Amino acid sequence: MNSPLPPSPAALPRVLIIGCGFGGLEAARALRRATVQVTLVDRTNHHLFQPLLYQVATAGLSAPAIAAPIRHLFRRQNNLTTLLGEVTAIRPAERCVQLRDGSTLAYDHLIVAAGATHSYFGRDDWAPFAPGLKTLDDAFDIRRRILLAFEAAEKEDDPQRRAAWLNFVVVGAGPTGVEMAGTLAEIARHTLPGEFRRIDPASAKVILLEGGSRVLQAMPETLSQRALEQLERLGVEVRLQARVTAIDETGLTVESGSSPHHPATNSYQINSRCMVWAAGVAASPLGRQLAEATGCDTDRAGRVRVQPDLSLPGQAAISVIGDLACANSHAPGKEPTPVPGVSPAAKQMGRAAAANILRRLAGKDTRPFHYADYGNLATIGRNSAVVDLASPAGPVRFSGYFAWLFWLFAHVYFLIGFRNRLVVLLDWAWAYWSFARYARVVTGIATPKDPASPRQ
Amino acid sequence: MNSPLPPSPAALPRVLIIGCGFGGLEAARALRRATVQVTLVDRTNHHLFQPLLYQVATAGLSAPAIAAPIRHLFRRQNNLTTLLGEVTAIRPAERCVQLRDGSTLAYDHLIVAAGATHSYFGRDDWAPFAPGLKTLDDAFDIRRRILLAFEAAEKEDDPQRRAAWLNFVVVGAGPTGVEMAGTLAEIARHTLPGEFRRIDPASAKVILLEGGSRVLQAMPETLSQRALEQLERLGVEVRLQARVTAIDETGLTVESGSSPHHPATNSYQINSRCMVWAAGVAASPLGRQLAEATGCDTDRAGRVRVQPDLSLPGQAAISVIGDLACANSHAPGKEPTPVPGVSPAAKQMGRAAAANILRRLAGKDTRPFHYADYGNLATIGRNSAVVDLASPAGPVRFSGYFAWLFWLFAHVYFLIGFRNRLVVLLDWAWAYWSFARYARVVTGIATPKDPASPRQ
Repeated sequence: MNSPLPPSPAALPRVLIIGCGFGGLEAARALRRATVQVTLVDRTNHHLFQPLLYQVATAGLSAPAIAAPIRHLFRRQNNLTTLLGEVTAIRPAERCVQLRDGSTLAYDHLIVAAGATHSYFGRDDWAPFAPGLKTLDDAFDIRRRILLAFEAAEKEDDPQRRAAWLNFVVVGAGPTGVEMAGTLAEIARHTLPGEFRRIDPASAKVILLEGGSRVLQAMPETLSQRALEQLERLGVEVRLQARVTAIDETGLTVESGSSPHHPATNSYQINSRCMVWAAGVAASPLGRQLAEATGCDTDRAGRVRVQPDLSLPGQAAISVIGDLACANSHAPGKEPTPVPGVSPAAKQMGRAAAANILRRLAGKDTRPFHYADYGNLATIGRNSAVVDLASPAGPVRFSGYFAWLFWLFAHVYFLIGFRNRLVVLLDWAWAYWSFARYARVVTGIATPKDPASPRQ
Repeated sequence: MNSPLPPSPAALPRVLIIGCGFGGLEAARALRRATVQVTLVDRTNHHLFQPLLYQVATAGLSAPAIAAPIRHLFRRQNNLTTLLGEVTAIRPAERCVQLRDGSTLAYDHLIVAAGATHSYFGRDDWAPFAPGLKTLDDAFDIRRRILLAFEAAEKEDDPQRRAAWLNFVVVGAGPTGVEMAGTLAEIARHTLPGEFRRIDPASAKVILLEGGSRVLQAMPETLSQRALEQLERLGVEVRLQARVTAIDETGLTVESGSSPHHPATNSYQINSRCMVWAAGVAASPLGRQLAEATGCDTDRAGRVRVQPDLSLPGQAAISVIGDLACANSHAPGKEPTPVPGVSPAAKQMGRAAAANILRRLAGKDTRPFHYADYGNLATIGRNSAVVDLASPAGPVRFSGYFAWLFWLFAHVYFLIGFRNRLVVLLDWAWAYWSFARYARVVTGIATPKDPASPRQ
């Protein structure tokens, strides 16, 4: 075996964690005092605070404000080795994983926390025209598209082509789609006006397309309604029951169920040069590979079905957590309920999987995973958010300014690392009072391409 | 003519400025109260504070901290239009410039401030192995190479190949080369130790190669000597009279004159996987194109020789300023002296060229340019800098900690925009006390390539 790591000196149990998202990070931390040898392998060198990624995509925050170097986070955890590398396959029979560079990593216990990526429901050919938002590179790509669309509109003489540059379409009204649409409207109405000479950025249209019948479907219906009202107040045009049937670089074809603007089941075209895909997530391909190698099941989204203790059936050495796991919560005395794909769930699974490994090493029984649901929050834009908190006395629900403040402090609080918190708060305080967005740096500019224009 | 701008409504004189570096920015600002129509065209959407670019390349600052959106800077200057575009040719006969997208821009007065790029002295094939540092994209590229070199070293089993990953070579000991080398040594000795498990980052070697006989040749000899001592104290190995004769991805071939380490005129090889080119600058290619179109002269570096008033001989409508200009300073009652390629000179030329345009419009005579030299400063690393100030009582020269504080406040003071200053100061204060560098985010990672390794 050709391992890039030295053999364990004291033959300590080797715990390998794939992925340093919320799940992998918490699992690694939970093992900090354990007599094991932990290796944390990730494709990137940073842990990304994904809930604020839309702020990087919309030029509100710089990348380092929401990304912390993994090595730095774990510099004092001496039982842990950080490795930059991409796992391409898991080989349970040999108790090792294969990296893209051809080397292998052996393990005694494996935690797979490889997460999810965006899904185009089989239409990956749409990806170049409507990028999704999962990584920093995605965020830079979307930021570039948004800023260059306004630049192209400023240069464009033809009114129809100019309007297409100023039509921003977000597909999918989950939390990311709602945040993106709300923030885009804020940029058009508050950040950019006064900076252009030929166009009025406030005339930009932000359209949010949702295939279902309401926005934020994971939220209770009353909060979906509040979110819809707040979106419309910000100037977002929300189209519900609108299914995208085609995307190319000139825009989208939409099939509409019923909406006030477009009556039932007609198909129409939206001209747009800047589209964002926030409609679907799919588990990492590592899920299906693992399922094939172990004979386990995956669900429709490619997530691996796990046992109550988060390990795989017949493979006690392997646990799957986070967005890659199709898991149930086992509250004492209650029916199992599915665990949602949110960051608090990933963190709790990380801690639970680590604890179960330690129980196994101590010869004890593992425990079933129980998801403690503290509620759900989503922001919409300036001063707008919806909050749904679980409390022993029943749900606490509120929206608007105080919900936004609650959302803000909750997110800043959970940001990794003190310095980042301070920088993010400062950036936001300044952005709030000035309406400015300072991370409006576009690199790698070629002049924006417009094949429809005779000038290009 | 196919212009992306509307015809001047009141037929105001059209002033076109190419480039929004220090020169272009100041020229545009100097015209803020003039009854002219200003267009500022730049290839990027941001003004870059180049003196701190090495901090982005070495993960000390995020890009938005040193780059301000041009549109935002000029949002209140109503006589100015910002345009994102790359000028590919100037056509003096037609009084217009050609953009890469095929459109043209007409002018009555033209200020060319297109700046400089790095020069490999005819060996452009070295560029992929030893990138230069001029743009944000360059800085990201260098940052990626530095951070991934340490990651690759951590994975490498072969001692010789590992040593090559930990050899960092900077070519050229001008201000940029000295800053890069000093900061690299700081990263290796103070930022990264403790974060790796198999390598000791402090064992990394930072080698600064200089063809001449001293570092910082624009400085007085005593300060060069101080800078050399400070570099060596930081752990940089400085090799003077060392000329690079070949570069490929495995390292450099160096011909050495005389140095304590390598006696006279031998040729030797340095194995390195991370090299930075800071040895030469060349004027923008627009200089030679302009010279050909107007019959003007360029100097060896491709800079356009200008008249005392910064306009071109026989082309009063065109001024060239900043790093693209080969200009003289005309102090009253003194011999003309060459203007150095530094940012204060570019700013002063920008103001002078704008003032001369206004004089011409008012039917007055133009004035010769006089460069007011306030001195020169360069930083070396933590607590280290050299300062050479001009004063009526003669030069004031100092080095070390107070020079570093002076350098720090001078740079933060000149940063564009209040918010950036605050963020930069905070980032530095934090980095200073913690030795941490937070902008250590690497995006667009493929696993580092190592063709010499059988694993790849």
